[in-house]
Amino acid sequence: MKFGRISRESPDGPVARLVVVEPEKGRVIDLARAAALHAKASFHATDAGAIRLAQARFPGSLTQALGAGANLAEAAAVVIGGRFGDDASLPIADVSWLAASDPTVLRDGLAFTGHIKGWHERMKRQVPDAILQIPGFAKNSPVMVIGNGATVPWPGYIQHMDYELELGYVIGRQGSNLRPEEATPYIFGITLYNDFSGRDLQHNELAIGMGATKSKDFAHAIGPWVTTLDEFADLDAIPMEVRVNGETWARGNSGNKLWTPAELIAYVSLGERIEPGDVIGSGTMGGGSALELNRQLQPGDVVELEAGGIGVLRTTMGQKQEGLWWPTPRQPFM
Amino acid sequence: MKFGRISRESPDGPVARLVVVEPEKGRVIDLARAAALHAKASFHATDAGAIRLAQARFPGSLTQALGAGANLAEAAAVVIGGRFGDDASLPIADVSWLAASDPTVLRDGLAFTGHIKGWHERMKRQVPDAILQIPGFAKNSPVMVIGNGATVPWPGYIQHMDYELELGYVIGRQGSNLRPEEATPYIFGITLYNDFSGRDLQHNELAIGMGATKSKDFAHAIGPWVTTLDEFADLDAIPMEVRVNGETWARGNSGNKLWTPAELIAYVSLGERIEPGDVIGSGTMGGGSALELNRQLQPGDVVELEAGGIGVLRTTMGQKQEGLWWPTPRQPFM
Repeated sequence: MKFGRISRESPDGPVARLVVVEPEKGRVIDLARAAALHAKASFHATDAGAIRLAQARFPGSLTQALGAGANLAEAAAVVIGGRFGDDASLPIADVSWLAASDPTVLRDGLAFTGHIKGWHERMKRQVPDAILQIPGFAKNSPVMVIGNGATVPWPGYIQHMDYELELGYVIGRQGSNLRPEEATPYIFGITLYNDFSGRDLQHNELAIGMGATKSKDFAHAIGPWVTTLDEFADLDAIPMEVRVNGETWARGNSGNKLWTPAELIAYVSLGERIEPGDVIGSGTMGGGSALELNRQLQPGDVVELEAGGIGVLRTTMGQKQEGLWWPTPRQPFM
Repeated sequence: MKFGRISRESPDGPVARLVVVEPEKGRVIDLARAAALHAKASFHATDAGAIRLAQARFPGSLTQALGAGANLAEAAAVVIGGRFGDDASLPIADVSWLAASDPTVLRDGLAFTGHIKGWHERMKRQVPDAILQIPGFAKNSPVMVIGNGATVPWPGYIQHMDYELELGYVIGRQGSNLRPEEATPYIFGITLYNDFSGRDLQHNELAIGMGATKSKDFAHAIGPWVTTLDEFADLDAIPMEVRVNGETWARGNSGNKLWTPAELIAYVSLGERIEPGDVIGSGTMGGGSALELNRQLQPGDVVELEAGGIGVLRTTMGQKQEGLWWPTPRQPFM
């Protein structure tokens, strides 16, 4: 089953709505609408009562919807059965997509050996032994998530722009101090994650050691939708591809990782808590950044990430935003 | 004015309530309760209507309360006037505190020259030139915030435990691409932030370069409450102190920073968005970590951070949680 988030007009302005996506039928189903129709027809709910109940179970936030129960797919299957799904459907071509999830915390792993090798070579850095000791992961800003079809903001202080081809593991339930052998069922589904990166800024940010900031947190594309875990036979054999302006720049799969998805999620959960709707990036596929190809993006470029069982996450690079403030360097103080 | 968050019992179990804190009167005022009393007495609201309105304006989340309007202090002053504040007050000694804010994103700066110098010396690292180029800041997990009076969880994989004495700038309104000269009014108020740190884990995490993970995200203490900006004459001259088991370990003030609060906030807002309720740590005061004193914390230690105009943030270190999974190192792959 596939879940997405779209923007719809309302008397209150644009509102987020959770949908089931049926690409093969060329449609999406507005879940809160289907659930309200279902409650009226099946339980004699009033109009107001049906809407209230439907919006509580299927709010526009995937994080809140999963927070109301990890059985989201089962609950959705009930309300889109029969004619309710048909009556609440919209043509997929007309849809305005939002980020497929609205994570409380957006994390990003580092697992593909090919990317670890290629990235360090291009950035002229030694691969640290620490990468063999613990699963590296970053925390990115969940405020800056964008969806399929979006224009990617490009702050003018970034010159060297790159994409990163990643899967996003979407968490379905709260968990803490998990062990790898129990972690996989905490994945609700998988989406695509484009962790856009300003490579020129990364050198200073890496030297400070507190994680990426301005080089990453201008945009995080997540989508087009989330495919539930049951639709994947093998998380380490998902075909992946990136195209720029229709040209294939890299093709591979989700194998050859230093840490399995279960190990990464278990590690993330240690001493803290993973929450429903959280997105944990798989790390960039080997060859899945333009840096590794000695290339870079230009304003106006159309970037498509594709993964088997999911679909295509397509975004367009915006024009550079000029005139922003930038800090004046300080004098040495030691 | 001082705003805090407390936990109260209800038929639904414990619920968060937003309070105005009056330490000099030994009380807190439950804002939603005062607002409901005010609406009933002043506008003939029904019981149900008064509660609905009051909870919409003064929810238990500071982030949501500020999201309903940056004029939170003015709105609170109206409803606690006259007898409503008295009727909705609770003795401060009986209160169970929550983290003073529930940030969407929890960031932590790096600004005090004394700490930058001392930390790098103790960690046997060179101060990188990058620290003079851009304001360093980290993103921590907002899921792990705790309040005044809490016991601090201590995952057993941390041996060398430390505190960090910081101010927390609490954001009052959305902002993006700010310049330093306009950034200060985006601060709603100031709180204390204890950024507990597992120093032994930091070496590997620093080497990976993606930011701190397990060394930081087990607990972030924020409190005891937020004092509004108007109560501070000079953000760079706030007295600060840390005590362990009643003994003063460090004393200083909020001066001697490489970047002003306004520069830090403007930088954070570049290309992304600061949100109401966000907490941005000032960075650790020079001498404000035990590492700089060649000391460390033990289970059971009581750690008190104090700042002029705010108060005391007191937490107790818990016992080590043993038996957690930890990853097995990988073989070199290059």
